[in-house]
Parts: sequence; C-alpha cells; structure tokens
Amino acid sequence: MKLEEMKCFLHGADYNPDQWLDRPAILKEDIRLMKKAGVNVVSLGIFAWSTYEPNEGVFNFKWLDNIIDTLYKNGIYVILSTPSSAIPPWLSKKYPEVMLTKADRVRRIHGDRSFFCKSGIYRKKVEIIDRQLAERYARHPALIMWHISNEMYGNCHCQTCQQKFREWLKQKYRTIDNLNKQYWSAFWSHGYSDWDEIESPSASIGESTLSPLAVDYNRFYSDVSIDFLNMEINTVKEYNSDIPVTTNMFHHNCGINYQKLSDKLDVISWDSYPRWHCGTDKTTEWDNAVRAAFDFDYCRTLKQKPFYLMESVPSVPSQFEVCKLKRPKMHMLSAMQAVAFGSNSVQYFQWRKGRGGYEKFHGAVVGHDGTENTRVFNDVKEVGKKLTDISELKGTTGKCNAAIIFDWENMRVLEGEVALKRNKNFHEIIYKHYEALLKNYASVDIISVDDDFSRYKMIAAPSLYSLKPGISDKIREFIENGGHFVLTYNSGIVNENDIAFECFPPYSLNDVFGVECEETDALAADDYNEIVYAGKIYKALDFCELIHTSAEVVGEYATDFYAGKAAVTKKQYGKGAAYYLACHTDDEFLHDFYHNVISEAGVYKIDVDYVQDVMIKERNGHIFLMNFSTEQRSVHIDDKKYTLDGYDYLIL
Amino acid sequence: MKLEEMKCFLHGADYNPDQWLDRPAILKEDIRLMKKAGVNVVSLGIFAWSTYEPNEGVFNFKWLDNIIDTLYKNGIYVILSTPSSAIPPWLSKKYPEVMLTKADRVRRIHGDRSFFCKSGIYRKKVEIIDRQLAERYARHPALIMWHISNEMYGNCHCQTCQQKFREWLKQKYRTIDNLNKQYWSAFWSHGYSDWDEIESPSASIGESTLSPLAVDYNRFYSDVSIDFLNMEINTVKEYNSDIPVTTNMFHHNCGINYQKLSDKLDVISWDSYPRWHCGTDKTTEWDNAVRAAFDFDYCRTLKQKPFYLMESVPSVPSQFEVCKLKRPKMHMLSAMQAVAFGSNSVQYFQWRKGRGGYEKFHGAVVGHDGTENTRVFNDVKEVGKKLTDISELKGTTGKCNAAIIFDWENMRVLEGEVALKRNKNFHEIIYKHYEALLKNYASVDIISVDDDFSRYKMIAAPSLYSLKPGISDKIREFIENGGHFVLTYNSGIVNENDIAFECFPPYSLNDVFGVECEETDALAADDYNEIVYAGKIYKALDFCELIHTSAEVVGEYATDFYAGKAAVTKKQYGKGAAYYLACHTDDEFLHDFYHNVISEAGVYKIDVDYVQDVMIKERNGHIFLMNFSTEQRSVHIDDKKYTLDGYDYLIL
Amino acid sequence: MKLEEMKCFLHGADYNPDQWLDRPAILKEDIRLMKKAGVNVVSLGIFAWSTYEPNEGVFNFKWLDNIIDTLYKNGIYVILSTPSSAIPPWLSKKYPEVMLTKADRVRRIHGDRSFFCKSGIYRKKVEIIDRQLAERYARHPALIMWHISNEMYGNCHCQTCQQKFREWLKQKYRTIDNLNKQYWSAFWSHGYSDWDEIESPSASIGESTLSPLAVDYNRFYSDVSIDFLNMEINTVKEYNSDIPVTTNMFHHNCGINYQKLSDKLDVISWDSYPRWHCGTDKTTEWDNAVRAAFDFDYCRTLKQKPFYLMESVPSVPSQFEVCKLKRPKMHMLSAMQAVAFGSNSVQYFQWRKGRGGYEKFHGAVVGHDGTENTRVFNDVKEVGKKLTDISELKGTTGKCNAAIIFDWENMRVLEGEVALKRNKNFHEIIYKHYEALLKNYASVDIISVDDDFSRYKMIAAPSLYSLKPGISDKIREFIENGGHFVLTYNSGIVNENDIAFECFPPYSLNDVFGVECEETDALAADDYNEIVYAGKIYKALDFCELIHTSAEVVGEYATDFYAGKAAVTKKQYGKGAAYYLACHTDDEFLHDFYHNVISEAGVYKIDVDYVQDVMIKERNGHIFLMNFSTEQRSVHIDDKKYTLDGYDYLIL
Repeated sequence: MKLEEMKCFLHGADYNPDQWLDRPAILKEDIRLMKKAGVNVVSLGIFAWSTYEPNEGVFNFKWLDNIIDTLYKNGIYVILSTPSSAIPPWLSKKYPEVMLTKADRVRRIHGDRSFFCKSGIYRKKVEIIDRQLAERYARHPALIMWHISNEMYGNCHCQTCQQKFREWLKQKYRTIDNLNKQYWSAFWSHGYSDWDEIESPSASIGESTLSPLAVDYNRFYSDVSIDFLNMEINTVKEYNSDIPVTTNMFHHNCGINYQKLSDKLDVISWDSYPRWHCGTDKTTEWDNAVRAAFDFDYCRTLKQKPFYLMESVPSVPSQFEVCKLKRPKMHMLSAMQAVAFGSNSVQYFQWRKGRGGYEKFHGAVVGHDGTENTRVFNDVKEVGKKLTDISELKGTTGKCNAAIIFDWENMRVLEGEVALKRNKNFHEIIYKHYEALLKNYASVDIISVDDDFSRYKMIAAPSLYSLKPGISDKIREFIENGGHFVLTYNSGIVNENDIAFECFPPYSLNDVFGVECEETDALAADDYNEIVYAGKIYKALDFCELIHTSAEVVGEYATDFYAGKAAVTKKQYGKGAAYYLACHTDDEFLHDFYHNVISEAGVYKIDVDYVQDVMIKERNGHIFLMNFSTEQRSVHIDDKKYTLDGYDYLIL
Repeated sequence: MKLEEMKCFLHGADYNPDQWLDRPAILKEDIRLMKKAGVNVVSLGIFAWSTYEPNEGVFNFKWLDNIIDTLYKNGIYVILSTPSSAIPPWLSKKYPEVMLTKADRVRRIHGDRSFFCKSGIYRKKVEIIDRQLAERYARHPALIMWHISNEMYGNCHCQTCQQKFREWLKQKYRTIDNLNKQYWSAFWSHGYSDWDEIESPSASIGESTLSPLAVDYNRFYSDVSIDFLNMEINTVKEYNSDIPVTTNMFHHNCGINYQKLSDKLDVISWDSYPRWHCGTDKTTEWDNAVRAAFDFDYCRTLKQKPFYLMESVPSVPSQFEVCKLKRPKMHMLSAMQAVAFGSNSVQYFQWRKGRGGYEKFHGAVVGHDGTENTRVFNDVKEVGKKLTDISELKGTTGKCNAAIIFDWENMRVLEGEVALKRNKNFHEIIYKHYEALLKNYASVDIISVDDDFSRYKMIAAPSLYSLKPGISDKIREFIENGGHFVLTYNSGIVNENDIAFECFPPYSLNDVFGVECEETDALAADDYNEIVYAGKIYKALDFCELIHTSAEVVGEYATDFYAGKAAVTKKQYGKGAAYYLACHTDDEFLHDFYHNVISEAGVYKIDVDYVQDVMIKERNGHIFLMNFSTEQRSVHIDDKKYTLDGYDYLIL
Repeated sequence: MKLEEMKCFLHGADYNPDQWLDRPAILKEDIRLMKKAGVNVVSLGIFAWSTYEPNEGVFNFKWLDNIIDTLYKNGIYVILSTPSSAIPPWLSKKYPEVMLTKADRVRRIHGDRSFFCKSGIYRKKVEIIDRQLAERYARHPALIMWHISNEMYGNCHCQTCQQKFREWLKQKYRTIDNLNKQYWSAFWSHGYSDWDEIESPSASIGESTLSPLAVDYNRFYSDVSIDFLNMEINTVKEYNSDIPVTTNMFHHNCGINYQKLSDKLDVISWDSYPRWHCGTDKTTEWDNAVRAAFDFDYCRTLKQKPFYLMESVPSVPSQFEVCKLKRPKMHMLSAMQAVAFGSNSVQYFQWRKGRGGYEKFHGAVVGHDGTENTRVFNDVKEVGKKLTDISELKGTTGKCNAAIIFDWENMRVLEGEVALKRNKNFHEIIYKHYEALLKNYASVDIISVDDDFSRYKMIAAPSLYSLKPGISDKIREFIENGGHFVLTYNSGIVNENDIAFECFPPYSLNDVFGVECEETDALAADDYNEIVYAGKIYKALDFCELIHTSAEVVGEYATDFYAGKAAVTKKQYGKGAAYYLACHTDDEFLHDFYHNVISEAGVYKIDVDYVQDVMIKERNGHIFLMNFSTEQRSVHIDDKKYTLDGYDYLIL
C-alpha cells in the first residue's frame, strides 16, 4: 500500500515493543487493543538502537521481523524509524567523540538523547544501522513511510565541527577580508587575520557579541543537521525509493531551518503538544488552540499539501510544570482541529506507557493497568471511529490566498539582537497577527521570504527585521501587481547578517510604504501608549516607531511626546496597497485592522463574525466549527444557527 | 562518667579553643563564663585538623591535653569530634584527588568544607588522625561521647567513585541484562552492554533521565558515606568501646539515609536551626515550631529513645537571607521545646564567636565583646538553671502509638520523578499531616517502611509513591490485625527503582483500600478543587486522583468534571480500617479528618481542643504547654485553666 | 594646545573611523557634520588594535595619520586611546594564555572585550602597540590627552596570576603563620602550611568562605590593574610627558580601586549612563539624576578639580532591558547636569553608529541614515552651542565643605560579608545619605578614609563597617577639632581584613559617640520599625542596632521589643559633635536629620527649601536650577521666583 493511496486517515501511535520483548502476552494483547481502538498504523523503532545493535556490529532484528509481520497480518501498517536520536551506551563509551561538545567546550557524556556531534563517527554508525534496517525492511509490504531520526536538535562545538564551520565560512566568504567586512568586525577589534582564528560563539567563555558570527553558526549547524538527515534519507531510499520519508518536526527554535529542510522530505509531520488546560492563569484553551493551528498551517504550507500529526498526547502530558488531565471531549476536539487544519493523521506518543524511563507517565493509549477500561482508551477509540466516518477528507486541503511571513532566518537574526529591548517577543507577535486573521475566519499560509508571493492577495510581515538581497524588490513587485502588504515596525533594518542598512528603515521600501523611521521607543511589558484608528482608541505596545510619512495616516499616536504622529499608514502603490504599523498593538486593533485589510484585498474567508473561542476552518468544502470554551456557543452561517456545547465541534 | 548515667541534661556548646591558642587569658575566662552559664559539656575539635596536624604526619595535641584537663578539672565534660569535615590545605595540595568531583566531572579545589571524595586517600588520612585522637583521649575521664565528623554531606563523581559505583551495581544486579531490565533501559536506547558503560548521573553534561540510575547512585553514595562514618566509628571504638558515638544529623536531604545510618550510632544527635522570626510573611513561629518538632520526633523515633540537641543558636543565626534576633523568651521556649520532644541536651553552636571565618557573626553564647553582660548570655544562663530544675526528665520519653511514614528511599524516588507536576511538595505534605496530628495533641513517631508497624494503632503514609517488595503485605497485615492506616494519592505507583507497577495504583492494595486510581489531575499552586466531607466544604489541592472505589465514600469532589467522585474513602478490612485520601487537602480538613481517625483508632493524645499556636507535649508524665504566639493564650486541662503570655511555657 | 589651557568645554565623541576606511565620502561627511554639531574633540582608536596591527608585528597607522591631520585642520582635537581593551583575534590564537582564566579555572577563548590576563604576554604586547602609537603621535599638535585603555575590568585566576598573588601576600604578611593569624584561618581548618597552598577564591569550585582571602584577592587584582594602567601611562609619557593621561572610569564595582588609581592619572573621566526613562515603575528621573550626580561628585572629589564626561549617550541607550528614547529636552538637561557638577566636557559614545557590532543601535550623534535631519543631531548641536555660551565655567568648581565617606575598601569588605542580611544595600544606603544632602542643596564630596578630613565641617560615614588602623583616631581627631561626624549602624565592626574587633562596636569610638552596640536586628525588605525624632515618626529599616548609650538620645525606637531604646544619638566631643544612627531610616528622616546637622555644622548650602525633583548646584558662583520632573516647578531664591517647565534648566 502506498501512503498516498490510502483512503483512510492514519490513526496510530509510536509503538515500542522493544521494551516488552520478554512479555509475549502483552505484545499479543497490544494487537487486540489496537484493533479495538481503530489503530491502523504504528511508528516503530524510534529508540531501538540498543536493541537492534546491543554490541558494536552485532545486529538483532528477528524480534522486529515478528512484530512487523504480526502487525501487517492484523491490518496495521508500519512507519519505521531510523534510530539515530538515541544511541546505545557502547557507542559513546568506545567513541567519546560522538557526544556533543557544548558551547562552553565541554563534551557531554552519555545520557538523555539527541546530544551528538553530527560530523564524525556517529554519522558513520548511523549510516550502518540505517542500511541494515533499509536492506531488511524497505520492501516489506507493511512499510508505508520512513521516520528519519526523531525531533532532531543539538549543535556541536567540537574541534571537528569548528573546522567544518571554518570551511563553510570559506565557501561563503572566500576571503577573510570579505568576511571581516561582512561581519563589521572592526568593532571591538574583532578583525580576523586568518580563518583559523574563528571560533564558534560561546556565551559563557567566548564570543557572544559578534552577531553575524552567531547567525552564521546557526545557519551552518542547520545545514549540518539537514545534511545529516539527508544522508539518512539517501541511505534508506537506496533500497526502495518509493517509500516516502518524513521526520517529525517539533519546535521552530530547535536549530533547524525547517523551511529549508522541507525540500528533502516527501511528507511533513509534526509533534503537537499544546498546553491544554496547563497554561497560566491568563491563557485560555483558545490561546492554546491558536498556537496549535499556527503550527498546523505552518506544516501545511511547507509543501502546500496535507501534513501528518505524528505525535500528540491522548491524555495527560508530562513535560509541563503542572500536567492537567485532558478534560472530557477535548481529545476529540483537538484531534478534529488537526484534521480541520489539514492533517492526514492523528497519531500519538505513545501506544503503551513504558514502566520506566523519562516519559513513563506521559499519557498513552494504554496505561500501566494495561486495560481498555479507561476514559483515555475510549476517547481514542472514538477518534478512530470518527476518522473512519470522515475519510473522504483525507488528502485534501482548504482554500487560502493570504499569508504571514514567518521566516526562520529572520527569526534567528531578530532574536539574536540584544538592543532596543532584550525580549523581542517575536513569536508572540507573529501569533497575534495570525490570531487576528483566524478571528476573521480567514485562511492563512505561513511562509518564508523565499516562497512564491504571487499566489496571495495579502501578505503580512510582522517585524521583517532582516532583509536579504532581493526581498525588498519582491515585496515591491508584489504590491505593484496588486497585492496588499502589511509591514510593521522593526522591519528592513538589517541585512541577512544583522548589518544595519544605511538609511531610515524600512530599507529600499521607503517609497513603497511612504515611511521613514527615525527613532524607535521601546515600551516595558506593563507600559503602553495609545493610538486612534477609525475613531476608536487602542493600545500601542512593545515598540513605537517615530516615522516620517508621505502615506495616508490612518492611525495616530494619542499620548506621550509623539502624540499626533503617524502610527498606522496606508499607501496605494501600483495596483496594490502598502500598510505600515509603526507599533505593536492590542488584539482588538489587529482584529479590526485585518478585518478591513482582508476585505479590501479580497482574502478568502468564512463570512461569520467572530464568535468568542470558536474556531472555524474549511477543508475541501467542509466547514469545521470548534468550540474551545467550556460554555455553549452559537454560530450563524447562511441564516442557519449552529449551537455547540463546551468543547463541542461540528463538521458541516 | 558514662553518658547514660549522667543525672543531668547536657548543657553546652561547640568550643573552638584552637582559634585562641595565643590568648591564654581568653581560654581562662572561657572556663569562668562556662561555669557561670551552667555549661557542663563542650564539643571539641570539630574543625581542628589543621591545628592537630599542621603538616603531614606532624601531630600536635599538647594544647588539647591542657584544654581537656582544665575543662575536666572544672567539671565540664567533653564530646570529642573527629575532624574529618574540614581538611587542612596541605592535604588537598599534596593529594588533589581527595577533593570532591562534582556531577559535571569538575574536581573542586580547596575551600569551604565537606567537599571530599570518600573513597581514596582522604579516607586513609582520616583514619590516621582519628587513630591518633582515639589513642590519646579514648580513656580520658572527661570524654563522654565521640562526635564523628560533622554534618556530613557531598557526593563524589570521580573515576574511583565511578568504579566503586559499578561494583556496587554488580553486587546488586549480578548481570548487566538484569540491570537493564530493572532499569527499563530500553527506553531511549539506554541499554548497557557492559558495566563499564555506566556513568553516574549528571544533570549538566550526562545522564539525567534514567531515574533508577539516579536512585541507585543516591543509595550508593549514602552507603559510601555510612561506610565512611562506620570506619571512623570502628577506629575510635578500637580504643575504648564504652564511649558512645554520634554524628550530628542536620538535613533530611543531605544525601545520607539517616534511617539506615542510625544502626551504626549509639546516640542520635541533631542540629536544629528553625527560622525563628526569619520566615516569610506567611510563616508564623508556630510553623517554625512544627518543623522543629517534626525533626525532634524523627530523631527520637530513630532509636526509640531520647536524642541530643547537638547544635542550636542562642541568638541570631547567620545562614538566612535576613537574620532576626531571637525575641525575648524565645530562647528558653525553643530550648524547652527540644526537651519536651525528647532531647537529653541543649547545646549550641558555638560557645564564643570567632573573630574571623564564615560564621563569625553566627550567634554564640559569648560575643566579640567577650563579656557576660548581654541579653544572650543571660538567656543561656537561665536555660542552664532550668535544665537543672527539671533533671528528672533526662533519659525519659513520652507515650506514643501513632506514626507517619517518612521513608528516605521513598522521598528520594518521589522527588526525583519529574512527571505530573515538577514540584511534589513532599516535605510540605508530610509536615501538613504531622501538623494535623500535633494540633490534635497526639504523639507521633516518624518511621521508615522498615520499622515495626505493630507498636502502632494508626499509621499515616502520605504519598507512599514507591513500594519495595513486602511493604504492601506489611500494610495489609497491619490493617488486618486491627491497625488504622491512612494512605493518600501518589501511593503504590512504582517499585523501589521508580518502575511503574502494571496496575491501577495503589499496587497490591486495591482490595485492602477498595481503591483503583485511573487518572491523576495535577493542580497549580494557586488552583484548587473542593471536597465535601462530613457536611463541610474543604479545599482539594496539588493532586486529585480519579478513583474507582468499592469502599465507603466519606468525602466527594465538589467541582470540575469529576465532581461527585470519591475523594475520601474508608474501608473496614480485617480488624482494622483503611482510609484513602485521593487528593491533598487544606489544613482544616486534615485537622478534622485525623480528629476522627485517631479517636476511632485509639491513638494516645492529650485531651484538649487545639488552642491556636499552643503546642502541648507529654514527657514522662509531665505536660509541656508552649505558646508560640506573642499573645496570651489559655489552655483548659482537666477543668483547670492555664494562662500563658506570649512565648511562655509551662511544665505541669 | 594644552588641555588645561583650552578656553572652551570639550564637546565631542568616541570616533571609530577604522570601521569606515573604505568609505572616504563618509569620513569627509563626518568632518562637515562634526563642525555643524559643534564638536571640538574626538576620542580615537579605542577598539582599533586589529586595524593598527592586523598581524603580529605588522603595523598600519597611515589611515590614522590622515584622520588626525584632517581633524586637526578642521579644528577638532584628538584624545588618543591605547587599544588594550580589545585584542585582535591573532593574539589570542597565538598566545591563548592572554585570555582571562575565570574563578572556575576555565580559560576564556576569544570574544567580547576586556577578558585578559594582565600578567603575561598581553601586557608585553600592549606595551609594544602603545609604544608605536606614542612614538608616532605623542607630539602631534592635535593630541590633547591620552585615553588609557577603556572601562577596564576583569580579574584573572590563571596559574601566573596565582603565583603573583602568592608573592603579593608574601610581601604583605611575610610569614605564613602571620597570614594564618590575620586570616583567622583556624576556622574550618583552613590553616595553611605553605604559600603554595593558597588558591584565589572561587565561588563555584573552591574557597568561598574565607573572607580575608577574598578581600586580599580583590586588593591584589586592583593593584595588578592599576599597575597595568601605570605601565601604559609610563609608556606613552616617555614620548611626551606634557600630554595628560586619563582612563574612563565607569563602575564602582569594576574591580579597581579608583581612589587608589586616581593618583596615577592627570585627569579623571567618567562614562555616565543613567537609566533615563528606563527605570522601574518606582524610579523617577530624579532618582536617576541623584545617581548621576553622585558619580560626578565622586569624580570631582578624586582630584578636587573638574572631571571629564568621557561617554554619554545622546539618545537611546542599548544596554538596558527596555531602552527608551531620551525625551525632548532631556539631552540638554543631562548635559547641563554634568556641567553643573563640575564636568569640563560633554562627550558621547559615539559619533556615528556602526553598521554592525554589539552596540550598533546604541544612540550616536549620527545614525545609520547618516544625516543631520534628526532630533538627536539637533539636540547635540544645541548642547554644542550652549557649551560655547557658558565657556567661562570651564575649569572651575563649586564650594564644598561636607563629605560622605564612600571608601572602596570598606565597600568590598562589607559587600563580601554574608551574615546578618545577605544584601547589605550598601550602594543604596550611600545614595540615600547623599540624596538627603542634595535635597538640602548642600554640596558634598565623596571621599575615602584616606582623604584629608580637615577641609570639612561635616562628614557622614554610612556603614563604615571596616576600620583599618588609624581611622578611628582620625575620626576622633576630626570631631575633637570641631567637626560634625555622622556614623551609622554596621560601623567599626571589623578590621581591614574582615576580622571582628573584640568589643561592642563601633571599635575604638565607643567613648567618642557614647555608643556600644550589643545586638543587631535585621529587617526584611518589606519590614520596618519606627523611630520618633524631634516629635515626628519615621520608619526604621534594614538594620536596627540595640545600643547602650551615654550620649544624648535624640531619637528612639517606637515599636517591637526594643521600643524606647535609643535609635539616634548625639554627643558633643571636644569641639565637635558625634551623631550615631543605630538604624537605616526612610528618606524623610534623613532629609530632616541632615537639615539639622548641616545647619549646626555650618555646611555650605544654597538657602532654598527642597522643591520636588529640582536639583540645584553652584559652580563658580553660578547657580544651576534643573527640573527633573515633567511638570512645571517654581524655585524662590533671594525673593526671586524662577519657574521651570518640565525638564527645563536655568543658569543664574
């Protein structure tokens, strides 16, 4: 069976039978329970290296042969993982250099997972074990996908990686003089005379103030990680190029540029762990749902096709300070949210709780009691049934002609900059813009600056701080051709290396937006200014730019010494419109502002006024209504009234 | 004079004449002042190693001969300390390996105290100096006790200790396969192929997620420390086995299993430093007194006989963020509390403030002024007099037939577990149960799971998370035979290695308590649910278990999705009763709940309703009334009314 | 032109043309803009080492020849910096030992600035580059001052420095026995048997409890730093002893005893970065202005002559958590404050924002836009004009006959002491006393204990904790001769090595003040007692001493168990008066108390009642009125009323 030909949603879990090999009764019971729960796929072998290869070069796959055969006979497909995210102790004992060297130049010893140097022997050993796996299972009929490594992260600073970093820099800058110039290294006498003088950044014992170096090291190690994953991909593909590959992405700040990585993957998959019920006092489930939705839209955008929810927790999580039970109906609601936003699967970590290990209390389909007589098991079973009911949605997506730029490189450059205000709140701000569009029930892609702009009517670029060559022109062209573009404060200030442009920002876009930013005032977390926009008063927050403008002033500051100055501008440019927000604002402003922008721009949306806590999303013509509050909510669509109890959903 | 034959309480202090050897007038004045203060014992030599042995193998005890002789002539007995808690600089300079290697594998350099590797040369050097001391003083008539080392703590991670740890593990698990199985090490590919691959845990650079390893390392180093102390004990006993030995315990989390250590000691002694007047806004002196009382009951229980208050501060402490003067009458009150709870002594750190060093401002009997004209000196003198008045109480204890299980191993396993809620508040919770019993004026032993249960009518086991083999049966038998047992949420979940049992908790006790816990909801610090018990509403806090029960439901949850479910249950089993608290609760509930339980169980108590801030304790038939508030309080006992002003006490 | 002969104030900035050498148009534009802004001096070469000496022994100064010549031709003088505060990467690559070894004994790798070992090759390399610079420019007519290094800090713990430290100790204590005695090292068995056993303190891995060692290490490294700067001074002076030298001081806790360093300098200069508008909620601009004023008075006192404001920010800073724009008029106000308090200059960091580097957004005269069309540029230009208008004030100071003792050694000893209360708030308390005098519009010197007391009518010594030999007598003599001396709690407790005196404090001054302190109560931050003074009730804070006194009790505690005891005393002694404050107090008390004291003592002051937020300062007969609030304020002087709008100033 080919993954894309499957008619049904995937429903399944990470499965770790290697922990139960001495318990055949349990392995047998697993099959019975999986069928009962409507599970049709499991992810295998993620942490099984020490079972596969208990001693160097001694391999043991018989147990896996049995497991896979049994699963297949029972109609359960397999996603097989390469085991690179956790190595056996013998490997680090014999080759200590496989362990990651931290920025403080201390090499780790064995423990936890993911802390490896991706440059040396580890890489070779991973290739060997991957090859063994692929040779044996690449053509097994149960296999529908390769799961390459697991939630990869971790940057190494060992001497081998340092040398590779220098080579990478040489490739990029050719001469040390050019690097010095691009790094503005004359500041604080940081001018290098030779490549060998370059050391990766180290906040604790070395360089922490040369931001271009930090930015490049981040790029370098993202490249190293992608190259590593690509080595794994090529290895397994050698044995059957028809099996699609994925890796489970999990965190925008894990050190890997997912937007660059996605080209290497056939399928995007995501581990989604919203803080359901576990947020702070001020966090609602709506807030959690917004962040989950953002990640789903991000994943869907990466390949403009459905993604896979590779991991989620069927009950109580284990990684938060305080871990709450999923309230009744929340499991179904959160599963349906993933589907609404384009997932082709609902998968869990994990099938059965292990008796030991760091995640032994992390919610699983089957608990330590081993029975089906639990709320959790029933919740999972119901999701399984529901997925069968709606299987016609599998493989489809919804309509979308608006986008937010959330560019990995811009994020790294901006978050590394210490001036103005230490905490740039960049993720928060991106979420706020996204939420405002969600509340307008518009569909949104989450794109990088390298993506094709022409498919959109409107693009928002909050704090597009760093502009690499060509991006200004790309924005100009987009607007010229009729696009609506929202730019904000902290945009167009530096180039791709955090080197300031010699102008009032936004660089090379002053004429397009009619804006020149002379100064920026930073506001503390509990501080605010006010703006007046369309007759209403809103809060200005975080950063307030003092701009000179030739554009139409549609919003003004209301207080402080810059009262009366432009805060929100709009300029027709070519066939399009250029909006500029000189400050961060409260949610109400963004809601109202985008309401106007998307209506002018012709952005696709569902024509409903925002109902508090209710998320609405279209997939292949079906409308999902999802109530993230505990109270009853009513939604009016096309003169019909739909009533949802707390945590209810409806698919129209 | 033998310690046990002494008719009077010990009253004395740590005495460090080695700091004043060039000041004979001061040493002479000390004797005069000691007599004036009613001091009859001093602890000598705790930090005197560099004076005893100023260079390797060069010993100097003459000064001590004089001191001890003079003290003895003046009727002051001596507790002589082995000096192992602080080494001379020459030792670490010549043998750097004596210094402790931290978990980050960095070896310390000389400084502070207690940071030593207990496995190598340090151990040999300690034996030598101990032998010198014992040979010279073991039969001196002034000597009434050995004070072995001082407030020992500190775990080493050097290669020698690693190797010893591996040997310890080999002894325990015999085969690496068995260890892997017991550790559930297949999780995250942690399966070891050889003992040599095992490294002690390291949160910063190595293993931090394999909880059985951490638990075993804690056990191992507790064993190393106990073995070290035992070496010291055997060394001094060689020269006179009649002199009792003690070591001053000071902290439940110092790394040593005191419950295991106590077998090696003749006498239990404790360093008591309550935060009198130094707590936070919400902490009262009652709260401080409860914790002090807990430690006293803990010490008394260890050998079921009186303990020694080895250190306390006669005035202002030095170790807190803000150090307050002891308010008038508090010194007497706190001394009497120690006596009420079973101390055979009131001893201080220290006699005379040193002019330099880390503790030069730590309250002492004699200050830098060197006079007797101080509030502190007078307070001490009065305690001395009082101890003489009540000397008939020396050597006695009170009646007690109830216990709380506060097991060192369970504590280490529970506190190491990160899931559900990071902060398990285990100490807090134990104190809360203890306080509820104190407020009911019941006497309580603080026991381990290995102690004899049969002496008790009632045992409470808050969060008995980890059950080693046999404990379930022991509890079952206790109840069967008529005992009343209070078990709570977070009990019976894992075995002694933090490996989850394959059942709904509590393991192997479901039938006894009629309880199966399906799920546990964690509550943030500012969150609460409610329970209804005996018609009143109380708060449910921290953890709320959702249980299935066949027992009598005596309390129910009042809100959230599990409202109406059982929160407090009671089941008659055999001749006894099994109570289960599915959640943590507020103080009022525990007070009321234990009021009922101890009355049903026939627990020994003083028949008085709780008077706020007044502690009441019986010792050998005498009743101590102690008012820890600043306001007047009245207590009615047997139709008599006793009135106590602020910080007053009465002995009936 | 000699610096002292210049008739005008210096107005200028750090100038880093080495960052723009490939941009001749910008260098040309700089000259035009400098003239427009009224800039008459620039500081050059601070971070230019990697440009001066791009490879070891290869020097390149031609660019600097041009820059200096061009500046000079355009009437702009030069302060030339030695480049030792930031080394080129080749230096640390070739000689890793130049990098600083931290207290944890880890040697840094290249990065940031100032992290060097001042004992070895770095010192030699600095001498070489300094010699090159001095040889070439020492007689250039543009050169008016040497700027030695830059904001020096950083203590090294490498083996070379350890050895030097031991030599320094040997020099000081002669025998190890003497050191042991002075260090009271018998405590915790710290007695050394040989110099080689001594290691510098290390909070993380070594000695952290032997306070005399810490104090001596601080002294030692201050000496090393001063000796290093002196080497640089001697090197440049060799080539022209007429050019004055300075170094830009910046922080009282940078590790250097500025009071000792000042002897080596011709001119005192200061980098002033108040948190204008960037304070916490409770901080006003008045508070910021008080701290700035304190530093200015400190600098003026060091040589009893005008100082130079070497660095300040013309607009937004970059080093705070949240960086606010300087509000309109604040730039002029803050510049005038520096002048009022005795500065001979207003200088900025920096002239032009670099495009890269850690401080690329730190406010500069010219921004990334490169134009003169900014609020900041105009603000600077106006300051330039104003400085020309008031040039007759250059070189003058105001009258002053009162002082506060703020002694570097006392600060280090006190802040290192952990007992009583961890946070001694020493800086806060000094500022509070200073502010009280400022509010009385008195002039104040900030002196060390070594300064000449005889020039003052009144001296205040808040928390003069540590008294080295002779200081008690000096205070006694000062009072005897008619001086008014204010001493407080926490005074006269230890000697210069943090060794307690054998008496009730204050040591050797009991008779002078009529005070013996028996005990000290510490108060938490939110706690207070009360005192009654002159019929009013004030707050007692932080520390409350319980004293015995033979002096006149002018203030008493009002609550707690020591209510009624003396809190403020006054004693006539000889021709003078000895005041003792037994506790810290609120601002109102200090204001009222000093009002009385300075009136009795005949302290020079401006005869105006405090007007909130208005600072008044006399310089050479001119009165500066400065309103640090945003609201209008009126000041009455000699029957005239002066009205100042928000952030206004007036010079009378």
